[in-house]
Amino acid sequence: MPKSREIHLTKRPSGMPTEGDFALVERDSADAADGEVLVQNLYMSVDPAMRPRLTAGQELNEAMMGGALGRVVQSKSDAFGVGDLVSNRMGFREYFTSDGKGLTKLNPDPDLSLTVHMHALGMTGFTAYGGLLHIGQLKEGEQVFVSTAAGAVGSVAAQIAKIKGCYVVGSTGSEDKARWLRDEVGLDAVIDYKVTPIRKALQEATPKGIDVYFDNVGGDHLEAALRRMNTLGRIAVCGFISGYNSGHSPVSNLSNIIYSRVMLRGFVGTDFMHLYGDFQRDMTGWLKDGRVKYQETILDGIAAAPQALIGLLQGANSGKMLVKLAE
Amino acid sequence: MPKSREIHLTKRPSGMPTEGDFALVERDSADAADGEVLVQNLYMSVDPAMRPRLTAGQELNEAMMGGALGRVVQSKSDAFGVGDLVSNRMGFREYFTSDGKGLTKLNPDPDLSLTVHMHALGMTGFTAYGGLLHIGQLKEGEQVFVSTAAGAVGSVAAQIAKIKGCYVVGSTGSEDKARWLRDEVGLDAVIDYKVTPIRKALQEATPKGIDVYFDNVGGDHLEAALRRMNTLGRIAVCGFISGYNSGHSPVSNLSNIIYSRVMLRGFVGTDFMHLYGDFQRDMTGWLKDGRVKYQETILDGIAAAPQALIGLLQGANSGKMLVKLAE
Repeated sequence: MPKSREIHLTKRPSGMPTEGDFALVERDSADAADGEVLVQNLYMSVDPAMRPRLTAGQELNEAMMGGALGRVVQSKSDAFGVGDLVSNRMGFREYFTSDGKGLTKLNPDPDLSLTVHMHALGMTGFTAYGGLLHIGQLKEGEQVFVSTAAGAVGSVAAQIAKIKGCYVVGSTGSEDKARWLRDEVGLDAVIDYKVTPIRKALQEATPKGIDVYFDNVGGDHLEAALRRMNTLGRIAVCGFISGYNSGHSPVSNLSNIIYSRVMLRGFVGTDFMHLYGDFQRDMTGWLKDGRVKYQETILDGIAAAPQALIGLLQGANSGKMLVKLAE
Repeated sequence: MPKSREIHLTKRPSGMPTEGDFALVERDSADAADGEVLVQNLYMSVDPAMRPRLTAGQELNEAMMGGALGRVVQSKSDAFGVGDLVSNRMGFREYFTSDGKGLTKLNPDPDLSLTVHMHALGMTGFTAYGGLLHIGQLKEGEQVFVSTAAGAVGSVAAQIAKIKGCYVVGSTGSEDKARWLRDEVGLDAVIDYKVTPIRKALQEATPKGIDVYFDNVGGDHLEAALRRMNTLGRIAVCGFISGYNSGHSPVSNLSNIIYSRVMLRGFVGTDFMHLYGDFQRDMTGWLKDGRVKYQETILDGIAAAPQALIGLLQGANSGKMLVKLAE
């Protein structure tokens, strides 16, 4: 019966969360009962979409939920053996027992790093893939804009658009990230919105307008994109990170969707699970060929999880933000 | 060579247009040259979408454009004979010559009034039909909200939704219109937003939320609907009449499209012309069966056209606003 440390939300943050909104709690983890497994988490994922759940959705004084990758350390289940790797939604804790519901066995590709299964080759990458191809209905050679293009989802979306022969503009908020997008990823135009206001920068960067906008930001980025949308353009709305802490700013020019007959659609990855097989095949190939690049920021130990989430919301990460919980 | 009177836009209105923004101009109409026809307009259509064109799109000191129904009075064309009825986009004038481009020969149904071809059985009705079924992807039995439900487009949309077995809520801005929607059309719930604020009224009228919102209004109606959208709901955006005169008010809760994975899509009727045959067959049947009811407000004479447009924008019409130009 191992000790398990976990992160609780103890206070709903107003604005940017602080470490005082969370507590590290140590508990005795139960052993696996009949039909159950005991899982030790190795890595946990930290995602922007966790912020809205702090305001509503996440129970107070319970372990937070989130994507994680664990290893079965005890098994009284026919479905899993000791040593199996399992994707789960029980992040923010070191150990947990499960009857197997919500666990997905992972057979990692030996030619790829284990952590890539938690981002580019996991739900993060799938969100980008389906958001761009299914929700955004991307066609070869179109004009594409991706916000937070250096982020875990945005960087995959931007690179898939490049693979599909599109002209791709990405926005980001630091010189380092802009440089990575320009020099390593090879986007056609990169906007550092902290240097040039997004509206002006986007107008200059999109001489042929925008056919597909993959939106992670909302607010001023969405307004700037609405001004540039081409007729029958599509906006795949993955997130509105600009409003998660400060409240969402109103969108003043939504009427442009009438004149240009634009579609906006909010989505989550589970809206297009029928594409998961295609995604795994395509993305495995792109990663092995080096056509999809990625960055990771990995913090160490469960105690660092609140700091990882706060850092993510402040843009302190490069690429996917993970916390390593065990070897 | 008849005299033709026509309406020019002489000044771009700020806010609600006034009669002083328009001028009635008399011109000599040319006779039909070889390959041409001379058309006398019988009826012209007045539509909310004309308002944005007064701000940008409509040339100053030229005859305004708009849908009309005319009769060929001279023909030197093989395609049209004298007496043919033709739909055209050359409203706001009594006579015009044409080489036939942009004219569509109309074979009116003898069992229906001629004017119905200018609304329920014309582009107005088609906009409602395709907006609801194609853009809104309406399914039998869903929860539906239609704004300006007593208007020319809205009333058709609301009735098609009823025919498809849906629970239908309509909003309107007068007691007379609310009564017509309740007693004649038979909607499940009718909101008079001048009596009860739209947000409160819509919450009460949609206990099972909203699957499809057919939006003609934008602004506060759209915000109220966004609060009530069900998961994977669709918003077919036909117009934002609330902002046409006063400027569009910002939408503060667009983030709801993420949490409920909602689609918003702006459209015009020409986006789904492949459905026109289906529409004509369905709508002809529904009109003959009395399953689609309509109202008309018909003003008399070209000089009344500015007043007709202003009245429409002020909600003075019941149903389709037309101007009769000749017998």
